[in-house]
Amino acid sequence: MNSKDKVLKLQSILSEHNIDGYMIPREDEYQNEEVTKASERLHWLTDFTGSAGLAIVLKDKSALFVDGRYTTQATQQTDLDVFEQLHLIKDPFTKWIIKNVPTNSTIAVDGNLFLHSKFEKSHKELAKHNIKLITLSTNLIDSLWQDQPQQPTDKIVIHGMEYAGRSSEDKINSITKTLKEKDTDAIIINNPSCLAWLLNIRGRELKNTPFVLAFAILQSDKTCDIFIDERKLTAETTAYLEKLCNINPLEKFHEALANFSNKKVHLDTPFASENMYQIITSNNGTCVDYPCPISVEKCHKNPIEVEGFEKAHVLDGVAMVKFIKYMREEVEKGTNLSELSLADDLERIRRENPNCLGLSFESIIGFNANAALPHYRATKDNFSQVTNNGILLIDSGGQYLSGTTDITRTFAFGNVPQEFKDNATLVLKGHLALINATFPNKTHGAQLDTLARMHLWNNGLNFDHGTGHGVGSHLSVHEGPVSISPRTTNPHSVVEVGNCMSVEPGYYKEGHYGIRIENLAIAQKSESDGFLNFNNITYCPIDFNIINQELLSVEDKTNLNNYHQLVFQKLSPLLDDTHKQWLKENTKPL
Amino acid sequence: MNSKDKVLKLQSILSEHNIDGYMIPREDEYQNEEVTKASERLHWLTDFTGSAGLAIVLKDKSALFVDGRYTTQATQQTDLDVFEQLHLIKDPFTKWIIKNVPTNSTIAVDGNLFLHSKFEKSHKELAKHNIKLITLSTNLIDSLWQDQPQQPTDKIVIHGMEYAGRSSEDKINSITKTLKEKDTDAIIINNPSCLAWLLNIRGRELKNTPFVLAFAILQSDKTCDIFIDERKLTAETTAYLEKLCNINPLEKFHEALANFSNKKVHLDTPFASENMYQIITSNNGTCVDYPCPISVEKCHKNPIEVEGFEKAHVLDGVAMVKFIKYMREEVEKGTNLSELSLADDLERIRRENPNCLGLSFESIIGFNANAALPHYRATKDNFSQVTNNGILLIDSGGQYLSGTTDITRTFAFGNVPQEFKDNATLVLKGHLALINATFPNKTHGAQLDTLARMHLWNNGLNFDHGTGHGVGSHLSVHEGPVSISPRTTNPHSVVEVGNCMSVEPGYYKEGHYGIRIENLAIAQKSESDGFLNFNNITYCPIDFNIINQELLSVEDKTNLNNYHQLVFQKLSPLLDDTHKQWLKENTKPL
Repeated sequence: MNSKDKVLKLQSILSEHNIDGYMIPREDEYQNEEVTKASERLHWLTDFTGSAGLAIVLKDKSALFVDGRYTTQATQQTDLDVFEQLHLIKDPFTKWIIKNVPTNSTIAVDGNLFLHSKFEKSHKELAKHNIKLITLSTNLIDSLWQDQPQQPTDKIVIHGMEYAGRSSEDKINSITKTLKEKDTDAIIINNPSCLAWLLNIRGRELKNTPFVLAFAILQSDKTCDIFIDERKLTAETTAYLEKLCNINPLEKFHEALANFSNKKVHLDTPFASENMYQIITSNNGTCVDYPCPISVEKCHKNPIEVEGFEKAHVLDGVAMVKFIKYMREEVEKGTNLSELSLADDLERIRRENPNCLGLSFESIIGFNANAALPHYRATKDNFSQVTNNGILLIDSGGQYLSGTTDITRTFAFGNVPQEFKDNATLVLKGHLALINATFPNKTHGAQLDTLARMHLWNNGLNFDHGTGHGVGSHLSVHEGPVSISPRTTNPHSVVEVGNCMSVEPGYYKEGHYGIRIENLAIAQKSESDGFLNFNNITYCPIDFNIINQELLSVEDKTNLNNYHQLVFQKLSPLLDDTHKQWLKENTKPL
Repeated sequence: MNSKDKVLKLQSILSEHNIDGYMIPREDEYQNEEVTKASERLHWLTDFTGSAGLAIVLKDKSALFVDGRYTTQATQQTDLDVFEQLHLIKDPFTKWIIKNVPTNSTIAVDGNLFLHSKFEKSHKELAKHNIKLITLSTNLIDSLWQDQPQQPTDKIVIHGMEYAGRSSEDKINSITKTLKEKDTDAIIINNPSCLAWLLNIRGRELKNTPFVLAFAILQSDKTCDIFIDERKLTAETTAYLEKLCNINPLEKFHEALANFSNKKVHLDTPFASENMYQIITSNNGTCVDYPCPISVEKCHKNPIEVEGFEKAHVLDGVAMVKFIKYMREEVEKGTNLSELSLADDLERIRRENPNCLGLSFESIIGFNANAALPHYRATKDNFSQVTNNGILLIDSGGQYLSGTTDITRTFAFGNVPQEFKDNATLVLKGHLALINATFPNKTHGAQLDTLARMHLWNNGLNFDHGTGHGVGSHLSVHEGPVSISPRTTNPHSVVEVGNCMSVEPGYYKEGHYGIRIENLAIAQKSESDGFLNFNNITYCPIDFNIINQELLSVEDKTNLNNYHQLVFQKLSPLLDDTHKQWLKENTKPL
C-alpha cells in the first residue's frame, strides 16, 4: 500500500468513528525524540522519516506539518499530491483545520500521543470556531497497519552504583521529601528519562537512547509502582526492582491514574499526554505543575557521574582522533568518500571500543552546502561525496555506560575562502569565551548565551539555534530543563553545579557551508566563592585549517593552547605512536 | 511635634476610623520617584528622607520598611524607639502585620497612594490570616499635618516641536490606532511621564523631573481629557491644550473613571493606584493590561530627540570638563573640599550654562567607603571630606530642554591600591564591551547585561544593581520599560532603535571604595542588516588614573582611544584654550 492508498483507507473509516478528521503525531506515548519502529505511525502513513511532524487527514484532503529542519526532506520523501506540506511552527495546524473543515466538524487524535498542554490550547482555539477536538480510545493507524512491528521487549539492565553514583533508595527519599514539601501526594513518572534515573535502570529497546519505555508512580509515602511489559524483566532485574517498587503490567497504568480522588498529583506537563490528564482529573484528582523534581535532581550530575562522563569522553576522544586522522588522509589521497561512508567509518571506529554501546544519535555529516542546514542528515537518496576541496561538518556522539557524548567539529580541505576562515574563527572565539567563562551560580542560560554570540554579533552575524542543551548520564543526548539559548522565557533555566551542557555555537551560510564547534562541559564551583566555571570534558583537537590566527586575541590563544594541551594529556596515553605523533602535531601551541 | 508624638497622635485616631493599623507609603498618587513637599508624608511622620519606604503604625507599635540603599540612613534619621526598622524587600510587610496584629484586625491605606497590584497581592495574603486590608477615603496624615505645604501650582510649559520632534496630534493618532487594534475603548494616563510626552508639555513643579502632575484619559475616538489644577495654566497653555483635549479640574478625575461601564480601559498597572482600579471596576468597567502603548512609543526616541540628547550632552560634557579640571586642581592643592561642597560646585558649573534648567537628580558624590554604597547620598549630618588620597565616585546629571543627562565617573587621587586599579579596569572593560557592541534588533536586556559583567565575572567579581536604565527626553532620568539587567522576567525588555539607555557597570568593595562608569547611549541601526549598536552620547574623559593599561586588550584600547577622540572633537570647540589643552591631555591615545 502506498501512502495514497493508506490515506484513502483512513478516510474511509472516519465516519465509522463519527469524526471528520484524524491527527497523526510523530510522538509516541513517552513524548521523546526517539520512538520505536512500532510507533513510527507518521512514517508509515506519509513515508516521512524526520523526528518531528504531524499529519492531519480530513475526509477530502490531508496535510503534513514539518519544521524548518525537514522541509526539503519532507518534500523529497512524501507524495505531495496526497499531503499538502506546511510549516509546523509558522503555520499552526489549528488554522489549517479551521480553514479546511466546516463548523460543527469533529477532529480526533489518540490522546496517549498528544500532549495535554497542546491539546488544551488547540481545543480552545478550535472551539472558538465551533470545531470539536476529541480523543479516541483506539489508534486508527494501528487498526490499519497490517504488518506493524511489535513493541520491543529488550531486557532492561541495572545501572550500577559505579555509574549512577547514588542509590535509587536515596533518590526516592529525596524526591518524596520534595513532594511532601510541595504538599503533593504523588508524582507521575511519564518521562522515561526520569524513570531510568530514579530506579537506576537502563533499556536497550531504542537504538540511540537507553530508555526503559515504561511508566511509574511514586507516592509521597515512598510507595512506588512501575508499569512495564514484564517480558523486559529477568529474574535479576525483577528482584532488583521488587526492592524498590511494585511491578505492574503496563496496561494497568491508566487504571492506576484513576486512584487519586481528592489527591494532588504532580504531572510533568512537557511530557504528560492528554489521556493521563483526563484520567486523573475526571477521577477527581488535582494535577499540580511545578518544575519536575526528578528532572531537577537528574540534571545535577553527582561526582561519580562527572567522573564517568570524563572517562566516556576520553574513549570517545580516542575514537575521534583515529577517525579524523583516517578521514583526513583518505580525503587528501582522493579516496572515494561520501557523507554516508564517513558516517559508517565513524560508527565503526567508535564501536571498536567495547565500552561504546552505540551512537547517541544518528551522525550528522554535511559537506559544503549540506552543512548549512543545521540538522541535515544524509540519506541513501540524498547525500554528497566528500572531496579534498571543501568544508565538512561532523556532529556525532556515542553511548557509553558511564556517559553520553556529543561533539561537533568542522574541517577544511584544500583552499577554503578566507571569509569562511574568518567566520569559523568567530565561532571558535565564541566557543572559547563561553566554555572558559566564570559566572555567578544560577546565571540564566540566556545571559550565558551572549558569550557564544558576541563575536559573531560584532560582525553582523548570528546563528538560528540554541547554544547549548543538557546531556543525560547514559541517557538522552538532549536533556532538560537547563539550556543555553537566547530564550528568556523559562525562569528555571539557570546553570548550577553539575549541569552537563553542550557548548555549540555555529554559523551557516546558505548554499555554501556550515560551521559548528561543540564540546560538552559540566558546571563546577570556581575558585571564587559563589561563582561557577565549566569543566570541559570533550577531548578532541580543533582543526587548525579553519582558523584565522590574526583574529585570535592573546586570551583566545591561551585558551585554545590550554585546551589542546589538555586533549593531548588525556588522550595520548591511550594512543599508539603514530596517532600520538599525529595528535602532537594537531594540538601544538599557536 | 517629634515623630513619637506624631505616631501617638495617629494611633489615637485609629479607632475613630475602625481600623487597627495604618500604612504610610512614600509614594504619591503619581507613583514616581520624586514627590512634592506636600506629598512627603512618610518624611513628615518618620524623619526619613529616602526615596522609597513604607511605615506602618499599629495601635501599639510601628515599623519602617526601607530597602538596602537606605538601611544606614534610616537608622540615623529615625527614632528607633518608635519605629522598628525592617527591610522593604527581604521582610515582607504583610508578614510583619500578620505577626503583630490579632486576627480580624483591619489595616487601612490611602487607596490613591497604593498600587493596585500591590494592594491585590497583600489583600489576598492578609485575608488568608483573617486580616482585612481596606482603603480609606481620607488621608490620615493630611488630617494631622498642620503645616502641610500646598501642592505646587507652577505653570506648565509647551515642549516645542524643536525638542519633541513629533506633534501631539500625531502621537494621539498613533496611540488611538493601537487602542483600536487592541480592542480598547480608552487609556487612563496615570503616569505623568506619559502625559508630558503625549501632550508635549513639561512642568516645573518638581525639582529634578519636569513632570506635570495631572491625569488624562484618551479614548479610542481621540477624545482626550486632562485633569489638572487650572492654576498651572496660562492663556497660552490653555489655548494650546484646548486644541488637543478638554480641560477638567483635577478633582473630576475619579468621577471620570466611573464612566466606563461595559467598556475596556487600559490601565498601566505599574502606575495604577488601587482607587483607580476600584472606581473603574466597581462601575462595570473592565481593566485591560498590556504594555502601555505610550511608554512603548515614548522609549523610542525620534531623530529630533536624539539630536537634542546629543546637544544636551555636549553642554553637559563641557560642564563636566570644567568641573573635573577645577576639582582635580583643588584636591591636589589640598583645598578643604567635601562631598557636599563638590556637589554644590558641580551644580553651579552645570547651571552656568543657561540651557541647564537644573539637575536631573541629586548628585551622588562618595569618597572612599561612602562610594561603596551604590546609592549613597551625603547629607548635612553625614558626609566626608575629599582629600588628595583616595577614590571619588560622582554620579550626576542635568536637565536640559533638549534632553536629560546622567553620567558617572570615578577618580583616583594620590596612591591608590593596585587592586582598585585592576578592578576599575575590569569595570571599564565591561563598559566598553557593552557600549561598543553590535547586537541583533530586540536583544533582551538580560542578554546584553552579560557584556558589562563578563570581565568582572572572570575575576570572581560582580555588582548588585542593573547595568542600564532608560532615560527620558527632558523627562525622568529613570524611564521604563526597557532595562539592561540580569532579570529575565519581563519579555518586553528588549532593545530597539531609539532606546536611550544608561550603561553603568560598577564594582563596590564594602568599607573601601566604589567604582562606576556610566555613559548614556542610544540604540541605532548598525551597518549590518537586522543589527543595532549604540550611539554613545556622553562626552567626558575617563580618568586615566583608575586604569591598569596592562589589562586592556588591543580592542579595549582602540575603543577607549576612539571614545576619547570623540569627546575631544565634540567638546573642544566650546572650550577656552586652557580647558582645551587640559582635555587634549586627558583624552590622549593610550
